[in-house]
Amino acid sequence: MKVIIVGGVAGGATAAARIRRLNEHAEITVFERSGYISYANCGLPYYIGDVITDPEELTLQTPESFFKRFRINMKIHHEVISIHPERKTVSVKNLENGEIFEENYDKLILSPGAKPTQPRLPGVGIDKLFTLRTVEDTFRIKEYINKNHPKSAVLAGGGFIGLELAENLRELGMDVTIVQRPKQLMNPFDPDMASMIHNEMRKHGIKLVLGYTVEGFKGKDNGVEILLKDNPSLQADMVVLAIGVTPDTALAKEAGLELGIKGSIVVNDRMETSVPDIYAAGDAVQVKHYVTGDDALISLAGPANKQGRIIADNICGGDSRYLGSQGSSVIKVFDMTAATTGINETNAKKSGLEVDTVILSPMSHAGYYPGGKVMTMKVVFEKETYRLLGAQIIGYEGVDKRIDVLATAIHAGLKATQLKDLDLAYAPPYSSAKDPVNMAGFMIDNIAKGTLKQWHLEDMDKISRDKSVVLLDVRTVGEFSRGHINGFKNIPVDELRERINEIEKGKPVYLVCQSGLRSYIASRILEGNGYETYNFSGGFRFYDAVVN
Amino acid sequence: MKVIIVGGVAGGATAAARIRRLNEHAEITVFERSGYISYANCGLPYYIGDVITDPEELTLQTPESFFKRFRINMKIHHEVISIHPERKTVSVKNLENGEIFEENYDKLILSPGAKPTQPRLPGVGIDKLFTLRTVEDTFRIKEYINKNHPKSAVLAGGGFIGLELAENLRELGMDVTIVQRPKQLMNPFDPDMASMIHNEMRKHGIKLVLGYTVEGFKGKDNGVEILLKDNPSLQADMVVLAIGVTPDTALAKEAGLELGIKGSIVVNDRMETSVPDIYAAGDAVQVKHYVTGDDALISLAGPANKQGRIIADNICGGDSRYLGSQGSSVIKVFDMTAATTGINETNAKKSGLEVDTVILSPMSHAGYYPGGKVMTMKVVFEKETYRLLGAQIIGYEGVDKRIDVLATAIHAGLKATQLKDLDLAYAPPYSSAKDPVNMAGFMIDNIAKGTLKQWHLEDMDKISRDKSVVLLDVRTVGEFSRGHINGFKNIPVDELRERINEIEKGKPVYLVCQSGLRSYIASRILEGNGYETYNFSGGFRFYDAVVN
Ligand SMILES: Cc1cc2nc3c(=O)[nH]c(=O)nc-3n(C[C@H](O)[C@H](O)[C@H](O)COP(=O)(O)OP(=O)(O)OC[C@H]3O[C@@H](n4cnc5c(N)ncnc54)[C@H](O)[C@@H]3O)c2cc1C
Ligand SMILES: Cc1cc2nc3c(=O)[nH]c(=O)nc-3n(C[C@H](O)[C@H](O)[C@H](O)COP(=O)(O)OP(=O)(O)OC[C@H]3O[C@@H](n4cnc5c(N)ncnc54)[C@H](O)[C@@H]3O)c2cc1C
Ligand SMILES: CC(C)(COP(=O)(O)OP(=O)(O)OC[C@H]1O[C@@H](n2cnc3c(N)ncnc32)[C@H](O)[C@@H]1OP(=O)(O)O)[C@@H](O)C(=O)NCCC(=O)NCCS
Ligand SMILES: CC(C)(COP(=O)(O)OP(=O)(O)OC[C@H]1O[C@@H](n2cnc3c(N)ncnc32)[C@H](O)[C@@H]1OP(=O)(O)O)[C@@H](O)C(=O)NCCC(=O)NCCS
Repeated sequence: MKVIIVGGVAGGATAAARIRRLNEHAEITVFERSGYISYANCGLPYYIGDVITDPEELTLQTPESFFKRFRINMKIHHEVISIHPERKTVSVKNLENGEIFEENYDKLILSPGAKPTQPRLPGVGIDKLFTLRTVEDTFRIKEYINKNHPKSAVLAGGGFIGLELAENLRELGMDVTIVQRPKQLMNPFDPDMASMIHNEMRKHGIKLVLGYTVEGFKGKDNGVEILLKDNPSLQADMVVLAIGVTPDTALAKEAGLELGIKGSIVVNDRMETSVPDIYAAGDAVQVKHYVTGDDALISLAGPANKQGRIIADNICGGDSRYLGSQGSSVIKVFDMTAATTGINETNAKKSGLEVDTVILSPMSHAGYYPGGKVMTMKVVFEKETYRLLGAQIIGYEGVDKRIDVLATAIHAGLKATQLKDLDLAYAPPYSSAKDPVNMAGFMIDNIAKGTLKQWHLEDMDKISRDKSVVLLDVRTVGEFSRGHINGFKNIPVDELRERINEIEKGKPVYLVCQSGLRSYIASRILEGNGYETYNFSGGFRFYDAVVN
Repeated sequence: MKVIIVGGVAGGATAAARIRRLNEHAEITVFERSGYISYANCGLPYYIGDVITDPEELTLQTPESFFKRFRINMKIHHEVISIHPERKTVSVKNLENGEIFEENYDKLILSPGAKPTQPRLPGVGIDKLFTLRTVEDTFRIKEYINKNHPKSAVLAGGGFIGLELAENLRELGMDVTIVQRPKQLMNPFDPDMASMIHNEMRKHGIKLVLGYTVEGFKGKDNGVEILLKDNPSLQADMVVLAIGVTPDTALAKEAGLELGIKGSIVVNDRMETSVPDIYAAGDAVQVKHYVTGDDALISLAGPANKQGRIIADNICGGDSRYLGSQGSSVIKVFDMTAATTGINETNAKKSGLEVDTVILSPMSHAGYYPGGKVMTMKVVFEKETYRLLGAQIIGYEGVDKRIDVLATAIHAGLKATQLKDLDLAYAPPYSSAKDPVNMAGFMIDNIAKGTLKQWHLEDMDKISRDKSVVLLDVRTVGEFSRGHINGFKNIPVDELRERINEIEKGKPVYLVCQSGLRSYIASRILEGNGYETYNFSGGFRFYDAVVN
């Protein structure tokens, strides 16, 4: 069996290694356009920021080491330029000498990844305008920095790569601005949660120019001018374009493979394309979203690695299936960690789902043990069915843990109410006896049982203008005086029973406290006294972070 | 409705608070024998070690604050001395003035916890011999240390509390010895995994006197002499007895409640005891083990809190069920973290299950990003069915995360082979594209498909005496020369294909490398060339830690 693989990184290299483990005698050749295989795409921003200092750390394998261990021909600087499914060959260009040759295959695997989306704008392509995908791109940026000591950078695009680069350039002491058309960074997060990311970025001196449209670039004064629609332009010593990625599938298109969203390759759950004996993996393929079942593009390393392994199984006579991508991801944002899994509220609503959410602010570990930090957790679930749809967490320690627990719960099909039953490990340095995930489960259980009725940020305007309701803040007098929502009256929860006649009977009471916990207790007191109550989801802490 | 609760800490205080939230008008009284309610049992060792310095941190609530918020009478220094189910009353002794009174209930909740097991040995009860359960116990120990500056301590017992105390006393500069009859610390762990805990304890100067039986204690030279069976006695300035806990159920027994293991209270899944209107929670009750379905005692704070909440629901007209305890737990052992969930191999075998395990040594996060640390993970599953039974992890960063993911997978009933499919969040500071839990899943998938056949530490003796097999170490020459298992021949994996004729045909090959990864690759090479191979589970790294 002769296997040809296009792309020697996450999906491609993993498939290659596993095929060898399953078949000692297959002939396996990998063509990789760049000069490196098995490189750590995800580490590249950290090399630029000097967090990773040894360039050798960026590649897990070299063609030599790969050959030694796996007897796989890793042909770097070789670009596959066309596929001929009818005669089962590919045409390959040796980029070192320009030679073109044809190579036949029994099985072909495409793992060409995705390329940085290049907007059709004037000035794209000029000097000092970079993109980041390969090791070479990284060295190019690093070299430019080392040589020219740029003082300022503009990043066009505020997704994963934009944010990681912003942080790393900032840590080098540069003046960093992120500019983009969307009003929020990191679209896997809902706008409310994203605002916490904005706060952290700003706290570390990153300028956010959100809601502005870049119209082009111009070389100017040894730097770049970034032209904005209807606004004065920005100026920087360098620019990185990171507005997203597009599946790198010109090859597949030309060969007549069925394509999906943004030109991605359509595959079935065995990772087979529409053409026999051609498989595809990674950023180039369209996947099923594990939660919605919809077609989706999810460009992450975990899925690429898993898909590569599945292809290897299937090529070697097995029957492995890819169950879909759930979009679990995590990012370091300076001192903070932001993580998500499943779908967010915005997208759930767009998909036509009836959703509800809980927002809570638990400690990463027991409050009495030093070092605990508050995190903000938002869990999204379907009304009525309580199907768990997604979660977002922003905080410090322990964020990645809780997102992985929630990701596992989603994968396993647990209901949101079942989160309360999870038996998680507790000792003071690690968690609380009621782990944050359990706590979310308690809250959702209360919603299911009618013990907790909520109101949300989006109801704020309507409610604050509605004279027929009581607005009550149950924090302490001190907390209230340091900041509160306009129109709210203050009765601390611990005085509520004595002062209950200060609250007009017959009107629904809209409650708020700092996190939502005390207002929940207040709501229970009031309900027990015949009032109808609604608890502000997330509390003043959340309101303040999002609105102010 | 009048509710009486015995015990005002994890189970009791949680039940009380939730009953109030569900019923504003119930009359709720909690009797607590000690002088504190809602205290952080789990934090007590850290107060002794000055990690927690403010004693107020040890209590989450006071009787006053509890009354203010919940209108619950928290009667500290009140011991319930008997229950009279026939007339639905309890007799209570006010420990401050000796008065005894009777109080009636509609619903009674028992959450009296467990007490340190007191061996019937001469000298138990003498001065300088402590136990640790309550805040008062803690202050007693702390005061003794502050006053007498003991230089040495012996801990009888090496479970959670023994280890936490050992660490905290050691951090105060004391000479610390743990003595116990069992040959291993921390019996939720298998002996092989426990040996890593032993190593860490010894590394930090803790003396382990394992496999010795304490026969008694004697005051001597301003300290304590610890008498050992058939061995010279130990000597220390103080002793803490921490050989385990026993359900504190004299009360329940006398009242005729059905009792189970070690005198624990038998409850159904609604946490109802055998007597109508009496409920019980926490360390005092017998639970179903979530994995085995067997009756079990699992004394942990998470279950106690959950059970308290369930009782509140049921008392207030709901129908909540406790699904059983899974034994998820975690402990800080100096710089290390040790965590477990489900059952271990030893107990699984005792339960008559046919089990298999994988042992792996993944990095906590991507190797190329600074700060990653190796962890040792052991996953236990049932042969044939691949039911996930338990997991143990010992390492540094990220141990608690993976145990909670595995705990969630077990709770959700995922099969061990499904671990490979989990969509977990990856970025270099947090994990690898193949998360450790996925990696365990890949290995188990390989076992299921026959691609990985293993041999285990327990086979070592048999194999090394068996001349009809080939013993092969595939690490580098340098690694091999720094230490290897007797009788093993060295051919580095990367030279294996050239030197394959050095390996006798027709004999099964038993392979070892450092972690198990390279020997797995070697096994695949050999199998592809017609050999029968077995891979040493855990690798030389594991062997060395366990055996040396
Ligand atoms: C800067 C950066 C940071 C990232 N951070 C994270 C992160 O933290 N977490 C995460 O989960 N994911 C992250 N990702 C995404 C992750 O790297 C990708 O999802 C993953 O690498 C996709 O694998 P792949 O095999 O599809 O493509 P790639 O790994 O991109 O490999 C594709 C390879 O194919 C080669 N190629 C393309 N076409 C041809 C051709 N015609 N002939 C020959 N070779 C060809 C390319 O040169 C490339 O090397 C990051 C990506 C980048 C760029
Ligand atoms: C030092 C220490 C460290 C621990 N560390 C951890 C950890 O890291 N993780 C973890 O999960 N668990 C840990 N635990 C266990 C955890 O604290 C218990 O599982 C949990 O507190 C059990 O809750 P409970 O309500 O059953 O009993 P408790 O919390 O012990 O409360 C019982 C209370 O009842 C009172 N009482 C008993 N009898 C009577 C009576 N007749 N009348 C009136 N009052 C009575 C007692 O004084 C006691 O205060 C630790 C325990 C200790 C002691
Ligand atoms: C380097 C690379 C080729 C390695 O591929 P790989 O050999 O499949 O992966 P690993 O080295 O992690 O090894 C995993 C294999 O070892 C096995 N394994 C791991 N530990 C083991 C142990 N202790 N005992 C036995 N087997 C073990 C696993 O089962 C798996 O084998 P399988 O796929 O046949 O089941 C590939 O991961 C790569 O190129 N990575 C870099 C690119 C990338 O992922 N970039 C994006 C993220 S930055
Ligand atoms: C202090 C103590 C009485 C608190 O009990 P509690 O009020 O049930 O617990 P918490 O303060 O954590 O609050 C949890 C409640 O708040 C709710 N909640 C939490 N955050 C919320 C939010 N943002 N919005 C709305 N509700 C929220 C939860 O749903 C839960 O309510 P429920 O049980 O009615 O569903 C009890 O936990 C205790 O005594 N603890 C110390 C003893 C102990 O556990 N020791 C062993 C471990 S060291």
